[in-house]
Amino acid sequence: MDKILLGHGSGGKLMHQLIREHFSPSFGMHGTGDSALIDVPSCKLAYTTDSYVVTPLFFPGGNIGDLAVNGTVNDLAVSGAEPLFLTAGFIIEEGFSFADLKKVIASMATAAKNAGVRIVAGDTKVVNRGKADGLFINTSGVGAIREGVEIAASRIKPGDAVIVSGEIGSHGVAILAERNGLSFDPPVQTDCRPLNGLAQAMLAIDPQIHFMRDPTRGGLATTLKEAALESGTCIRIRENALPIPQPVQGACKLLGLDPLYVANEGILIAILDRSKSDAVLATMKRHPFGERAVLIGEVAAAPEKMVLLETALGGSRIVDMLPGEMLPRIC
Amino acid sequence: MDKILLGHGSGGKLMHQLIREHFSPSFGMHGTGDSALIDVPSCKLAYTTDSYVVTPLFFPGGNIGDLAVNGTVNDLAVSGAEPLFLTAGFIIEEGFSFADLKKVIASMATAAKNAGVRIVAGDTKVVNRGKADGLFINTSGVGAIREGVEIAASRIKPGDAVIVSGEIGSHGVAILAERNGLSFDPPVQTDCRPLNGLAQAMLAIDPQIHFMRDPTRGGLATTLKEAALESGTCIRIRENALPIPQPVQGACKLLGLDPLYVANEGILIAILDRSKSDAVLATMKRHPFGERAVLIGEVAAAPEKMVLLETALGGSRIVDMLPGEMLPRIC
Repeated sequence: MDKILLGHGSGGKLMHQLIREHFSPSFGMHGTGDSALIDVPSCKLAYTTDSYVVTPLFFPGGNIGDLAVNGTVNDLAVSGAEPLFLTAGFIIEEGFSFADLKKVIASMATAAKNAGVRIVAGDTKVVNRGKADGLFINTSGVGAIREGVEIAASRIKPGDAVIVSGEIGSHGVAILAERNGLSFDPPVQTDCRPLNGLAQAMLAIDPQIHFMRDPTRGGLATTLKEAALESGTCIRIRENALPIPQPVQGACKLLGLDPLYVANEGILIAILDRSKSDAVLATMKRHPFGERAVLIGEVAAAPEKMVLLETALGGSRIVDMLPGEMLPRIC
Repeated sequence: MDKILLGHGSGGKLMHQLIREHFSPSFGMHGTGDSALIDVPSCKLAYTTDSYVVTPLFFPGGNIGDLAVNGTVNDLAVSGAEPLFLTAGFIIEEGFSFADLKKVIASMATAAKNAGVRIVAGDTKVVNRGKADGLFINTSGVGAIREGVEIAASRIKPGDAVIVSGEIGSHGVAILAERNGLSFDPPVQTDCRPLNGLAQAMLAIDPQIHFMRDPTRGGLATTLKEAALESGTCIRIRENALPIPQPVQGACKLLGLDPLYVANEGILIAILDRSKSDAVLATMKRHPFGERAVLIGEVAAAPEKMVLLETALGGSRIVDMLPGEMLPRIC
């Protein structure tokens, strides 16, 4: 059998076979019951969900499968939690290639292993040909929050340092290049990777980090604007300090995109007490996923709820949220 | 604005507006952070996920919204857990009616309230016109398992009683009727409803209930066959005892369906020690969602891994799993 049939989603024999032969062994799941039993080490948990509808399904450096695992791992990580368990829900278009599904499942299994999480429960639905775009994946995740950690925009204070853990714009440009048949030299790959190890290393140095978030859809600009709005502060960043890789810079110029709004899948923003930022930065730089970490700005009291970009020319411009749609289906 | 735009899923202003004005107030969610912080009363949890792709989205007695809440609540309930928290992930087709989305959200909020669960985190993706079928919803759920409760097919023993909590076949027939423009007199409505109250009442009488499951896709037959396979026992049921409402009976005859395979969304099967079954049944009958509960059979040692139906005529037939696809997109 090389194509997914409607029967693979109908609860009967075909679906059991799909689960038994592919999902269960790849994810190490047991039984056909719908709920997994999990044991958590703490009663304070982070809980999140994301659906992935990225197109194309395969792109430079990744596919929808590792994206679906790392994206949810990262949501938990930036809430200060150690990700523990994931669920995976598949919506598959009738006729979808079995070989591609197996590749995606394998990527998810590898990504889960690399992030140290277990995919414990799943669900498969198949919809008629033309009623979905190949494959959509939802993941949800549960993580344990360490005693004393409290990540919240409301804790952002004037004087805080603003750090980004790595270069911006790679994921969005990689997707867009693949979608439009463009190739860059050197090629731009997604930065999709799990950030829980990095986040936990940072929290080990400063358990009082005020705020972390991964700037995915809407990019760095939208995430900083959210932080400014939620905290009532002004976030000032320096254009010169922004780590934008040369190929991303070039691609954005070519495509008329602002890298500040391009999606990322493997970096985080942290806002923390200025007195801790050197030590945290030093730790980040020693972590493989934080080598390019850099201080990009600081928090001021006014003007409230604003993000200001100090340009290379010495001017200042207001950074707003992504107004509508720049790159649909980037994740 | 009366239609969903691509921008509603792009992480920017439009999406924030959708969340702020519709999702957050309906579900009582806070902030725009991706992870919710939850406090659980026990470290033994049940964790599950389901995607809902039912077509049509609105059908007699319900819609995709209450289905998405009750379906996940019921998965947790039959694992012996008290459902606590849900997440909701929306995949919306560009151009989808805002009014319909609001109806679905309102149904989800009501269903969550009725089940006593909180929807704590969500996600919205919008895909291009023609790339999804209106609306798909994923829900995941977390529930706390009571000390001493252990629901597992491996605990099913010869001699056990097999109980079904209500009439079978209503959900599948309601969907099929709506899909094909049929109407029955009296009309057949979905049985979609939360089973956590009923399950907890049953566990209060017999915390040692061996097995519970809600027979959704694949119907009663598939669920019983799963139980027989997983436990290595033989499950014998009596055709005469099966609670099949007259309109479902008639519709199945007309449509050439076997009610044993038709999906349900508001009943559960319980397999438990024979000595407790009268007391559990009496409790079920006093619960509004268990009024029609009935003993439908018992567990035998052999022939192993089989489900046998004792027919009204005194014969016996082998009940197998749904082989492929009977009613796609029933949930």
